[in-house]
Amino acid sequence: MNIDGIKVIDATLRDGGLVNDFYFTDDFVRALYQTNIAAGIDYMEFGYRASKKQFDPDKFGKWKFTSDEDVLKVIGEKDPKMKLSIMVDVGRTDFKEDIAPRSSSPIDLFRVATYMETIPEAIEMIEYISSLGYETTCNIMAISKCTDEQIADALYKLAQTPALAVYIVDSYGALYPKQARKLTRLYHKILSPAGKEVGMHAHNNQQCAFANTLEAKDLGAKWLDGTAFGMGRGAGNCHSEALIAYLNGKKYHVEPLLDLVEQWMLPMKEAGTEWGYNTSYLLTGLTNQHPRTAIAATKSGDTKYTEQYKFLSYQ
Amino acid sequence: MNIDGIKVIDATLRDGGLVNDFYFTDDFVRALYQTNIAAGIDYMEFGYRASKKQFDPDKFGKWKFTSDEDVLKVIGEKDPKMKLSIMVDVGRTDFKEDIAPRSSSPIDLFRVATYMETIPEAIEMIEYISSLGYETTCNIMAISKCTDEQIADALYKLAQTPALAVYIVDSYGALYPKQARKLTRLYHKILSPAGKEVGMHAHNNQQCAFANTLEAKDLGAKWLDGTAFGMGRGAGNCHSEALIAYLNGKKYHVEPLLDLVEQWMLPMKEAGTEWGYNTSYLLTGLTNQHPRTAIAATKSGDTKYTEQYKFLSYQ
Repeated sequence: MNIDGIKVIDATLRDGGLVNDFYFTDDFVRALYQTNIAAGIDYMEFGYRASKKQFDPDKFGKWKFTSDEDVLKVIGEKDPKMKLSIMVDVGRTDFKEDIAPRSSSPIDLFRVATYMETIPEAIEMIEYISSLGYETTCNIMAISKCTDEQIADALYKLAQTPALAVYIVDSYGALYPKQARKLTRLYHKILSPAGKEVGMHAHNNQQCAFANTLEAKDLGAKWLDGTAFGMGRGAGNCHSEALIAYLNGKKYHVEPLLDLVEQWMLPMKEAGTEWGYNTSYLLTGLTNQHPRTAIAATKSGDTKYTEQYKFLSYQ
Repeated sequence: MNIDGIKVIDATLRDGGLVNDFYFTDDFVRALYQTNIAAGIDYMEFGYRASKKQFDPDKFGKWKFTSDEDVLKVIGEKDPKMKLSIMVDVGRTDFKEDIAPRSSSPIDLFRVATYMETIPEAIEMIEYISSLGYETTCNIMAISKCTDEQIADALYKLAQTPALAVYIVDSYGALYPKQARKLTRLYHKILSPAGKEVGMHAHNNQQCAFANTLEAKDLGAKWLDGTAFGMGRGAGNCHSEALIAYLNGKKYHVEPLLDLVEQWMLPMKEAGTEWGYNTSYLLTGLTNQHPRTAIAATKSGDTKYTEQYKFLSYQ
């Protein structure tokens, strides 16, 4: 198993936060932190740093607005074995006010999430945040909605920035392995000459999240996202425990993640936090659409799949 | 979407029967039959024709021993739009006594399931059953345990028989997409010159069943297995509704399957029939082993995954 240069990012607090409004207990966050270190995970993402002017802090848990202090309060001293990241969305963060220089922060990496339409704003953020000393990546969401021409154009621009990597973000869980390979090749072709790497963030709407992540890895993607027990929006993500089990051996160790699934993730699901594959998510993935209708259907117990499919087919 | 020559087989009664001891109601079987026809599915598999000398008919539903009469009693007149199949296991069927000539039977295809060790017996069955006028295929189980040399040797022998196709049967859900492609290529190389086709029967232990089925299809596999809502042993199979949705269009129609999932499969699961992905199945797939320990763990509610993993790692 070639794991040279692989960076596994645990995005549980971030993508998982989308299904519980970022209300994680400190005990859970500490357990996840220790688990990730023991599993050999390279980065742990501590949610978002969203703008408190745009989002009401009374309506979300703290990991939507993660401050450096929040992180340090929960983890105590930072363990040098694992780096820490935070995601910032274009247009939803006060990045010029809310990010201190890296020298005074426990955070190593900011991942800048953007849609194709806001690549110029993403580049501005990447340049600014990099100038503060941080590592940065660009995470292009809803990539299944973009043309190859749009993607190539964005990648050529991003190749000129300080970003370390650009992610294929399959927000809609629409990609099949074949498409994951095609996109990885396209990303690679443009980014590699500039010394940039490729990342994969998959969703499990069509039960292809793990498979797509492996396919990207085999074609040289180095930044691989997972979440514990797949916790994430809608159908969820590539399961960290599956990915780490696959990479298991010298550097990565699956046992701590297996314990986390048993002791934390199953109880969380049983207590009613909802994520994971169902037929409604299959249909939004299939029709290459935002999972919002499937999320609503799942919440309300609507299993009229044929009606859902007809509705989606006319979008 | 190229669907030339594709044959989708619904194996719900057969692989699904392994999780409910083949106790399906006649109403369900009729609903499944009508659904499959409406969905454009090519073959429906009516369980096994197991030996009543070896298995007690009082301990299993009738679809473990499926007779021609059982089929006709439930479906009434056979619809010419869909062919019917039955699976026979090497060593577990009285094939010389229990199979009437095709001219007097509603069955079109017998699929001969075998382990690598019993290929000679499988060939004897294939030749005998073909001589009665039936279509036959050979389904080599636990393929992830076989070497390329064993597989090539078996395929060269099977290429000389009347079997229409040979299946990659990933009984342990151990294959990743890369391996599914490698096996499909190997099968193709040997079978194609003899005019035989390749089949894929996937299990979902590592959530790769659908992905592996698509990969095999893209490399020319023509016989693709699915089961409604993935119903099958352990982690289950490739979901028919996902596969048909993917192939959807001219010949295949997903809506009837979506209705079946809503009206029959979800209630069946809610009533306690157990199948589908969990972490115990991930671990038997990962370690390339029979799912029996994971089935037992799932039944007893054992979620001590690290212990399960240690046990499997020493097998």
